[in-house]
Amino acid sequence: MTVQVGILGATGAVGQRLVQLLAPHDDFELAALTASTASAGELYRDAAKWRVDAPIPDHVAEMTVTETDPDAVPDDVALLFSSLPSSVGADVEPAFCEAGYVLSSNSSNARMADDVPLVVPEVNAGHLDLLEVQRDERGWDGALVKNPNCSTITFVPTLAALADAGHDLERVHVATLQAVSGAGYDGVSSMEIIDNAVPHIGGEEEKLETESRKLLGEFDGVTVDEHDVGVSASCNRIPTIDGHLENVWVEAAEELTPADATDAMAAYPSLDLPSSPEPLIHVFDEPDRPQPRLDRTVGGGMAVAAGGFQESTFGLQYNCLAHNTIRGAAGASVLNGELLLSEGYL
Amino acid sequence: MTVQVGILGATGAVGQRLVQLLAPHDDFELAALTASTASAGELYRDAAKWRVDAPIPDHVAEMTVTETDPDAVPDDVALLFSSLPSSVGADVEPAFCEAGYVLSSNSSNARMADDVPLVVPEVNAGHLDLLEVQRDERGWDGALVKNPNCSTITFVPTLAALADAGHDLERVHVATLQAVSGAGYDGVSSMEIIDNAVPHIGGEEEKLETESRKLLGEFDGVTVDEHDVGVSASCNRIPTIDGHLENVWVEAAEELTPADATDAMAAYPSLDLPSSPEPLIHVFDEPDRPQPRLDRTVGGGMAVAAGGFQESTFGLQYNCLAHNTIRGAAGASVLNGELLLSEGYL
Amino acid sequence: MTVQVGILGATGAVGQRLVQLLAPHDDFELAALTASTASAGELYRDAAKWRVDAPIPDHVAEMTVTETDPDAVPDDVALLFSSLPSSVGADVEPAFCEAGYVLSSNSSNARMADDVPLVVPEVNAGHLDLLEVQRDERGWDGALVKNPNCSTITFVPTLAALADAGHDLERVHVATLQAVSGAGYDGVSSMEIIDNAVPHIGGEEEKLETESRKLLGEFDGVTVDEHDVGVSASCNRIPTIDGHLENVWVEAAEELTPADATDAMAAYPSLDLPSSPEPLIHVFDEPDRPQPRLDRTVGGGMAVAAGGFQESTFGLQYNCLAHNTIRGAAGASVLNGELLLSEGYL
Amino acid sequence: MTVQVGILGATGAVGQRLVQLLAPHDDFELAALTASTASAGELYRDAAKWRVDAPIPDHVAEMTVTETDPDAVPDDVALLFSSLPSSVGADVEPAFCEAGYVLSSNSSNARMADDVPLVVPEVNAGHLDLLEVQRDERGWDGALVKNPNCSTITFVPTLAALADAGHDLERVHVATLQAVSGAGYDGVSSMEIIDNAVPHIGGEEEKLETESRKLLGEFDGVTVDEHDVGVSASCNRIPTIDGHLENVWVEAAEELTPADATDAMAAYPSLDLPSSPEPLIHVFDEPDRPQPRLDRTVGGGMAVAAGGFQESTFGLQYNCLAHNTIRGAAGASVLNGELLLSEGYL
Repeated sequence: MTVQVGILGATGAVGQRLVQLLAPHDDFELAALTASTASAGELYRDAAKWRVDAPIPDHVAEMTVTETDPDAVPDDVALLFSSLPSSVGADVEPAFCEAGYVLSSNSSNARMADDVPLVVPEVNAGHLDLLEVQRDERGWDGALVKNPNCSTITFVPTLAALADAGHDLERVHVATLQAVSGAGYDGVSSMEIIDNAVPHIGGEEEKLETESRKLLGEFDGVTVDEHDVGVSASCNRIPTIDGHLENVWVEAAEELTPADATDAMAAYPSLDLPSSPEPLIHVFDEPDRPQPRLDRTVGGGMAVAAGGFQESTFGLQYNCLAHNTIRGAAGASVLNGELLLSEGYL
Repeated sequence: MTVQVGILGATGAVGQRLVQLLAPHDDFELAALTASTASAGELYRDAAKWRVDAPIPDHVAEMTVTETDPDAVPDDVALLFSSLPSSVGADVEPAFCEAGYVLSSNSSNARMADDVPLVVPEVNAGHLDLLEVQRDERGWDGALVKNPNCSTITFVPTLAALADAGHDLERVHVATLQAVSGAGYDGVSSMEIIDNAVPHIGGEEEKLETESRKLLGEFDGVTVDEHDVGVSASCNRIPTIDGHLENVWVEAAEELTPADATDAMAAYPSLDLPSSPEPLIHVFDEPDRPQPRLDRTVGGGMAVAAGGFQESTFGLQYNCLAHNTIRGAAGASVLNGELLLSEGYL
Repeated sequence: MTVQVGILGATGAVGQRLVQLLAPHDDFELAALTASTASAGELYRDAAKWRVDAPIPDHVAEMTVTETDPDAVPDDVALLFSSLPSSVGADVEPAFCEAGYVLSSNSSNARMADDVPLVVPEVNAGHLDLLEVQRDERGWDGALVKNPNCSTITFVPTLAALADAGHDLERVHVATLQAVSGAGYDGVSSMEIIDNAVPHIGGEEEKLETESRKLLGEFDGVTVDEHDVGVSASCNRIPTIDGHLENVWVEAAEELTPADATDAMAAYPSLDLPSSPEPLIHVFDEPDRPQPRLDRTVGGGMAVAAGGFQESTFGLQYNCLAHNTIRGAAGASVLNGELLLSEGYL
Repeated sequence: MTVQVGILGATGAVGQRLVQLLAPHDDFELAALTASTASAGELYRDAAKWRVDAPIPDHVAEMTVTETDPDAVPDDVALLFSSLPSSVGADVEPAFCEAGYVLSSNSSNARMADDVPLVVPEVNAGHLDLLEVQRDERGWDGALVKNPNCSTITFVPTLAALADAGHDLERVHVATLQAVSGAGYDGVSSMEIIDNAVPHIGGEEEKLETESRKLLGEFDGVTVDEHDVGVSASCNRIPTIDGHLENVWVEAAEELTPADATDAMAAYPSLDLPSSPEPLIHVFDEPDRPQPRLDRTVGGGMAVAAGGFQESTFGLQYNCLAHNTIRGAAGASVLNGELLLSEGYL
């Protein structure tokens, strides 16, 4: 028995990755693709400027794209993956939820809303129960679940592993070296980034600083209490296609050694969902790993890689990496969809 | 009256930049070029695989390269710029000093030695007087002055400006995004860095952490007392030709606002030496500047650029940039040579 | 006595290069900057997203941008440089000419029109006299002169040198490796070109094939007879910021040796205009030159570089290079402006 | 029944790709890995600086590397893949053949020797019978088979398809845009190629010009008569990791239209060998394809891609692409090994 699913915003960079991940999925069957009004009525082959480095799945290429409107999506579609621009998502996602659809959304709107679960399944699957609160408050038949920003997903599993091993995290500094695909297909012009780096990504630092605390927080059945770790981020765009690399410094209440950290991360459990990687965190001994080009596809692009553990002047420092459009976006949404299915929300 | 000068290790990447800066210099006249034994006797045009994006100065192209040996350098050469590999420098530089030559060296050996002045003229020109101690202790007629590592020079002037404005610096985190030219012409293979980043540069982090404290320290006539600021660095290589970009977090004993910082940096004085930029620190208002490709040549490559000032979760954060082979290496040595001349050491 | 000049389309990539070249010009004084209606009324500093790797000239930064309309440009402006998109240029340029302005245009519209001189001053300055025909036919007080496409300018001077030395050119194959700046600031997305190459640039091949024959043609006082050399082009975009590199094969009626070619090119004369490089063609002996990063700035970016001359299976082969936004666009227009001034058209 | 195989020169870039392709191979079992004397005795994990973007196969990681000497390779190894530097190959390969080993070699030495079959199985499998001549002349129990250079393999299948469809090829011009991996891991420094292109690869042009004629030639049972098509190549290195892109012009005795060419290529048969792609030539309709990053992995990296077909000023022009370290090197050798097995040479 497969579940009929759809994609809101199916033609963009993340939408294309969603198509790539969902087309061969055992539990989900792609039954709806939406895009902007301009593309509605076209075949997906024509509407999407396909840029993934593998062919469009044949049966998806021949599907007809519809408008991003609840009336345009068949009723037997039980789950929608959303990769809409956040300004569009803010308008449209609630309408879909009201119309009864369950949404696993990658869009940045509403991630920090009190009644919206922000979920990385291996880290805080329990937050999904916040949907009860959401449905109560909003009167929705549908539901809205979010995954965090790509740069947040990259480092949060490593912090969760440390917290889970009993380390009381107090302060985190993180500097990011982010790939251009994170900005979408036309997000970064080549003249902006070849032989260059840009030390600013609008709104990005705040996402790392706030989303991480929500993800690491405690859900008490009513609200999520954010973790009280302080996080400060500095974000950079570099000339890399895929894979966000991050330098992390962590200070804990008690001593936290490189050996403690590698043990905690190597032991941190993954889940049994279809897209879960095993292990979740791939720990490198080599000091110069992980590297985007070599390591972004560990675990099929769904794992997080970490390495370069060393004592710092102020605590512990290390580096981590994840594939930003798979683990950090499309794959994160798919995983949340799998969690929704396994937890009985579909 | 020009001073006859020479270059030890003239054929490498920094050596070529030294040639480019010294050939048109008003006070210095290039009279000696040394390289490895294999190149000795060749014309510079043949010995150097010239890779600077401007032609070799004609008269330098026709000079004959000699061995890197005190006996091979004419006696009327008063000042030598050294860009030897550090392992070679450790062996050979003392021999030159003993033979009476004054060395302005970019090599990393001996930078942290107690009696070797490590100098960025605008920051700690007074440390040059440590040469008296050096000569006493070593019995040299010559002298050995060092400039710091390229990644150290990039952020130290910004810290010096803050300290100079009365801020009591306590903790600094710095993440670097370093250009490939910092590793020399063959230092980074293209397969290693295209569509990639490498979160490790051997020995680099320690240089930022220790050299910065020596540069910011106090010289009491006998020794340099290192500044007690704690510095923690995380170093990355990225696919950029020239220009090191750095993300900096600073915590001070008292409040330190973005406005305090930009005022302090904009007001920090340069010097009157021939290669001094004006201003020393170019402060950007735009949040996405400085960027390597756009800003590495501010002040002819001798200035430092800073921008992105904002309140951080823990103090202040900002970004800075310098041209690593000009301000960070060849130009730093030339400036130290000009300081030696102006202070009467030649 | 300086001539008042303006720029139509001053905020784009070529417009910014025009500002950079014209601001310090001895004969021209920038008195008008136009852009799209959306930017009209703004200071140039705000209207242009300045991306040249040198600061905006201060006095230009403070100029107010006007609409691209003859009524918005002061009457005492004698010469306008146009870098409008070709679709806009086709509409607007004739209106300016009719209103009495002389235009030196880089836009691609009308380049192949019978009564529009397409000029590279060192190659076919005499074609400028076609303006008499143009004025007769169109009844304009103004005039319209074009420079060719950036990829055309790169190889035509080398062909002109061969033809000028008496070689009867019959067939030319040319493959181009073109920099991203040729497509304008947002023309090529980073995801399209990092770790990639694109073997297609819309309309580009035809430009090389037709413009080259017009440039090498004979003007008989009434029309330009195109040269009968056959030209076939294959165009590629590669991840380079500036500098178009081209592989050229030439077959002539009689033998044409590498020595003939280097002699002809080295001897080919430049002109005495203020922006003329000396020499026009910089000939390299090294087989691996010219290269974009190392050689695009020969002659201040106004020269053409050539090298790699060798006997081919079918005639002669060699490589050539020019800076596409200087020699190939903004500088080409400025040079045509200087020619118009020296020939008494202003 | 699997065949025991080994790799000569297993630690280099092509050697690593061979390991990646052979480790999961159904017919071959990796039983010997050789490298330089310095690495002999080490585990492969330590001897190879592994840079493929997938982990080292576990059982290969634990194998011990031996010297590249016939005495160091077990006798039950029936087939050796060679990716030695050509200067080493020229010395060592004959010794292995004399000792009875069959070699499928990617090294460039001896490719044009009269009695050495140069084979691309889909193009000229019949040339393998030249081994009878080789064994007669050299008295070898073993045998030496070569695959061509990576840039040759990229365009020869497209020419073979045209010739096979009855077109009498007369003249071919080819310009290459080659990836850095073609030069080996340390072959191209990053300073040489970032924001750059190099219009020269030593010896490469001659390889395309001569190997292509041998591959397209006729074997009459005694010698290979080279095809009399004239080929002229111009080779460039560009900042791409993998995938050689080539611009091709073809002139034939009779008319050759774009439609003829696409039909011929789409219809050109592949083989039934385990590593054969289906189809061999992937034909694109889009004018801007193939592109290295998007299309280098068609057919698992073993296919050739072609597109951009158009009438040229002089015949036909199109573009083609192949993965240079898979189809162009390691995969080519593996395919020749499969052909040797299927033809009974092992």
